[in-house]
Amino acid sequence: MCRVVAVKSTTPIQLAHLLTRPRHSIINQAFDSRLRLDLRRPINGDGFGVGWYDSVVDEELGHQPCLFKSITPAWNNSNLNRIAEKTKSPLVFGHVRATTAGSLSQDNCHPWSYEKIMFMHNGGIAEFDKIKRKLQASLSDELFLVPQGNTDSEWAFALYLSKLPDVHAREFSPAVLRDAVLETIRHLNELAREANITEPSLLNFFVTDGSTIVASRYISSKYDEAASLYFSSGTTFSEYAPGGHYRMSKSDKRENIIMVASEPLTFEKADWMEIKTNTLIVITPKARSHVASQAVTLAMLK
Amino acid sequence: MCRVVAVKSTTPIQLAHLLTRPRHSIINQAFDSRLRLDLRRPINGDGFGVGWYDSVVDEELGHQPCLFKSITPAWNNSNLNRIAEKTKSPLVFGHVRATTAGSLSQDNCHPWSYEKIMFMHNGGIAEFDKIKRKLQASLSDELFLVPQGNTDSEWAFALYLSKLPDVHAREFSPAVLRDAVLETIRHLNELAREANITEPSLLNFFVTDGSTIVASRYISSKYDEAASLYFSSGTTFSEYAPGGHYRMSKSDKRENIIMVASEPLTFEKADWMEIKTNTLIVITPKARSHVASQAVTLAMLK
Amino acid sequence: MCRVVAVKSTTPIQLAHLLTRPRHSIINQAFDSRLRLDLRRPINGDGFGVGWYDSVVDEELGHQPCLFKSITPAWNNSNLNRIAEKTKSPLVFGHVRATTAGSLSQDNCHPWSYEKIMFMHNGGIAEFDKIKRKLQASLSDELFLVPQGNTDSEWAFALYLSKLPDVHAREFSPAVLRDAVLETIRHLNELAREANITEPSLLNFFVTDGSTIVASRYISSKYDEAASLYFSSGTTFSEYAPGGHYRMSKSDKRENIIMVASEPLTFEKADWMEIKTNTLIVITPKARSHVASQAVTLAMLK
Amino acid sequence: MCRVVAVKSTTPIQLAHLLTRPRHSIINQAFDSRLRLDLRRPINGDGFGVGWYDSVVDEELGHQPCLFKSITPAWNNSNLNRIAEKTKSPLVFGHVRATTAGSLSQDNCHPWSYEKIMFMHNGGIAEFDKIKRKLQASLSDELFLVPQGNTDSEWAFALYLSKLPDVHAREFSPAVLRDAVLETIRHLNELAREANITEPSLLNFFVTDGSTIVASRYISSKYDEAASLYFSSGTTFSEYAPGGHYRMSKSDKRENIIMVASEPLTFEKADWMEIKTNTLIVITPKARSHVASQAVTLAMLK
Repeated sequence: MCRVVAVKSTTPIQLAHLLTRPRHSIINQAFDSRLRLDLRRPINGDGFGVGWYDSVVDEELGHQPCLFKSITPAWNNSNLNRIAEKTKSPLVFGHVRATTAGSLSQDNCHPWSYEKIMFMHNGGIAEFDKIKRKLQASLSDELFLVPQGNTDSEWAFALYLSKLPDVHAREFSPAVLRDAVLETIRHLNELAREANITEPSLLNFFVTDGSTIVASRYISSKYDEAASLYFSSGTTFSEYAPGGHYRMSKSDKRENIIMVASEPLTFEKADWMEIKTNTLIVITPKARSHVASQAVTLAMLK
Repeated sequence: MCRVVAVKSTTPIQLAHLLTRPRHSIINQAFDSRLRLDLRRPINGDGFGVGWYDSVVDEELGHQPCLFKSITPAWNNSNLNRIAEKTKSPLVFGHVRATTAGSLSQDNCHPWSYEKIMFMHNGGIAEFDKIKRKLQASLSDELFLVPQGNTDSEWAFALYLSKLPDVHAREFSPAVLRDAVLETIRHLNELAREANITEPSLLNFFVTDGSTIVASRYISSKYDEAASLYFSSGTTFSEYAPGGHYRMSKSDKRENIIMVASEPLTFEKADWMEIKTNTLIVITPKARSHVASQAVTLAMLK
Repeated sequence: MCRVVAVKSTTPIQLAHLLTRPRHSIINQAFDSRLRLDLRRPINGDGFGVGWYDSVVDEELGHQPCLFKSITPAWNNSNLNRIAEKTKSPLVFGHVRATTAGSLSQDNCHPWSYEKIMFMHNGGIAEFDKIKRKLQASLSDELFLVPQGNTDSEWAFALYLSKLPDVHAREFSPAVLRDAVLETIRHLNELAREANITEPSLLNFFVTDGSTIVASRYISSKYDEAASLYFSSGTTFSEYAPGGHYRMSKSDKRENIIMVASEPLTFEKADWMEIKTNTLIVITPKARSHVASQAVTLAMLK
Repeated sequence: MCRVVAVKSTTPIQLAHLLTRPRHSIINQAFDSRLRLDLRRPINGDGFGVGWYDSVVDEELGHQPCLFKSITPAWNNSNLNRIAEKTKSPLVFGHVRATTAGSLSQDNCHPWSYEKIMFMHNGGIAEFDKIKRKLQASLSDELFLVPQGNTDSEWAFALYLSKLPDVHAREFSPAVLRDAVLETIRHLNELAREANITEPSLLNFFVTDGSTIVASRYISSKYDEAASLYFSSGTTFSEYAPGGHYRMSKSDKRENIIMVASEPLTFEKADWMEIKTNTLIVITPKARSHVASQAVTLAMLK
């Protein structure tokens, strides 16, 4: 399973604080390190990707996110280290890949973007080969040509784009972004049914337009648990002890920073709320000073 | 345009003699170097690939070729240098890519193989985006899933495989391999016609099963020249002067080595015969001692 | 020979305008394309690097430049394309490498940085193997451990750092940066003399602290020309015709942007002044509104 | 800690049986998988390297080993998969790197070779920065220029080469190869003593000339255990159950295949003998039919 994190902050946050400096970032992850002391970096490393939006909107630079991807492991990537030290952003997606489908190439690394929209996936579409043709047939000529790699996830991204009323819109409401996730999952379930696929699909999708984040925790099964998904928010996310020990502090009631991740990213597990299987979370854009927790909406799928 | 070479030799030849040591290999190519002295390595470098068959058939190792591909330039690739020094083969394909379609990834590097069959392409399918869906629709489920990258060339390979009577056959006659090339070109022409594509396609295809080589020089136009294709044969291909100066020697009438390449690979241009536009060449398997020039068949396409 | 560019602009400039969009950037360079029409990208591609300073100083992000390096060719690098579109900077170094020494690795790609100082080199130190030990012996323990790769250029960078009165200083005057270049060249000449090396070294060095740029055009020979070096300045550098045709416009007397490059980067050669062999150019920091040409100082080396 | 394996076999063995197919190869290693079921590939992946000698000596191909190295993880490397399927060798070194020193580059991947000699290291030289200059000073000009990367291990290789009476010899006796290992360790200990380094060094070195293998398990401490090292031998090493389950079979008394590895490579731990701390093992060349276990010599270091 991959490791993913999505972060939204009212104040632009240095990528290093999310990715490279914390001992328990998705890149350096060593949570259960007490259980396997002999392994220095027991994580998967089939490439990774980071995507982020600008701190200050500049028409010349456009509204699309910047993406950095690599097929060499994230934990030892000089370019990532330097970029993470020098970049601040109010909205960041990070993804460390463990191959389940698709070869090792940058084209196959998450996240992907199309104009303002950015997308990543944690999980897998069961027996994707059996539904690939039908999925492709449902796409417009424009979106059929979007995928550059050969993963189920990137085709799910194209399918997602096809569920937006206008993929080229300058603005997307949280409801539009959320409904397209629901439609995507519904469509994938339908394709699976038609192909008599019984193995469940794991559909933790993460979507953003730079303002709203939608993240689903979903499995197409009544009995199994979906891939894990956690949520945390607070006033600041900062290092409380040398050596990359970070925590989410809650000094007042404002929620300046919100994280959604495949696993808790700090040792204080109480700070992390598990998102229930087959729900989704919507983080809406908000007034400058805070990202309100009441913005979180949980919706039952199917 | 890419640079390609296909070589068949009665005696296994060290890859270094074809790829890395000659000053005018497809990798080090500097033919017109007198015209641009200031440029040390004026060649394209969007990745490369080499494929070769075993010198001695070993059931345990199988009948498929070995492929080595890289997205870093071939002229400075330590792995290629070492492998080329240590490997001999009776049949070699080499391809240096200049991107016309598809991103920079190993998946997009030629040649590709499927069981015994190996394939590469020099040229481009005009407005491929307009015929991609129909081409895919014509493939069996098995072959639809063969391509891992996103190039027109790799889909042409899948189309080629679909033209073989039995893609899993242990043996292929030269006629079967040749006819499938003709069928592939015919099919691509038909798809272009249906899509009202008037821009010509450049379809220099190279196919082999490890014994026979078929190479086409084709353009879907009555007026234009296809991408260049040359042919040379001789008794030995060896270095006649230090510094990587190679030539094809013809010490007797036997043709021990045959090369088909996108341009002459030695300074003795007289040793290279241009293959005419819209013809193809078939190099048939032969008795041990020689590869006969009479084995070369030229067939008019269309 | 490598291709290099150093740019200083009063207004932060989008990297794309310097690197990826112009047809004649150091990356897409096709200046003499009329002479060799058949070659789409006749440039060298043994890796590349870009370094840039922040538009706005942010204490948290530090004063060091950000570097992005790659061993795959620059002209087809998705990460570079995306970063160049999304980044503005007032001071940029770019380097496309053609290997003369050192293997293909990011460690061997220019530019390098140490705290605030950034450095790159176009040329080569003659018979470097013969002076490597002595050069290393002259370095402090701290600087001896700086180089991570195995190029003459990176050791020249360490030597340069050793010529600064205080490598950790927060501020460097233009004179200090310039004198260290002169001292570096002097020291390299001395090492060559001691080792009886007669082959000339090509020492075009580029150094900056984020404010001042010093660039030398030097050859350790009385008779030969150094590697080329050009200079241009103007009010804006912008696209005047679609397809990446850029020019330096001089709408008033202010010099808002200054470029130093291994060759003219626009077709208007009149806009480019050749920097004479064995001189150096210093671009000093200036008041906000312009970078004055009178800031350019030419000093004869030895 | 890295993972390493060295194999010698009387019959050339397909690399796939050692590297890519076994579930418990150094590449796919999942030995303790029952303890951490949630992690699919809990191994380090800072590059890897494989080196092997020819099955049949061919003067044209030379006596040096072939090396294949990569900075992308071994478990998902298409080139490695293909080469491992198509290559047989009587003597193979494999190394999966977990960075302790040196950046991620092919130059920093083990094994290294110099003419016939191949070398790799598992461990680390304590506070290497403090002894690097002195180590370099002890090398001849020729050997000083051998290292291309910046790891302690590659400098240990250069030091090893300096301990051979004649690095260019066509033949090396087992005693000569072994004594050079002892001298290397002795010299490193001396350098550490002079620099007042008290942290112990882990010096598991593996050396071969294509015939003999010498492997040390050493720590420069009286109290600590060295990095683990195991030894196994048998008649054949083959798959006994689908899914990559391999075992060493001992059908008769002949030892056709000998492995030395950083950990047992099969589940039958009884088949693996732990090599004691501060000893070394020498696998000598033998008559065609078998590699005898009595060839194993244990020598106490200092």
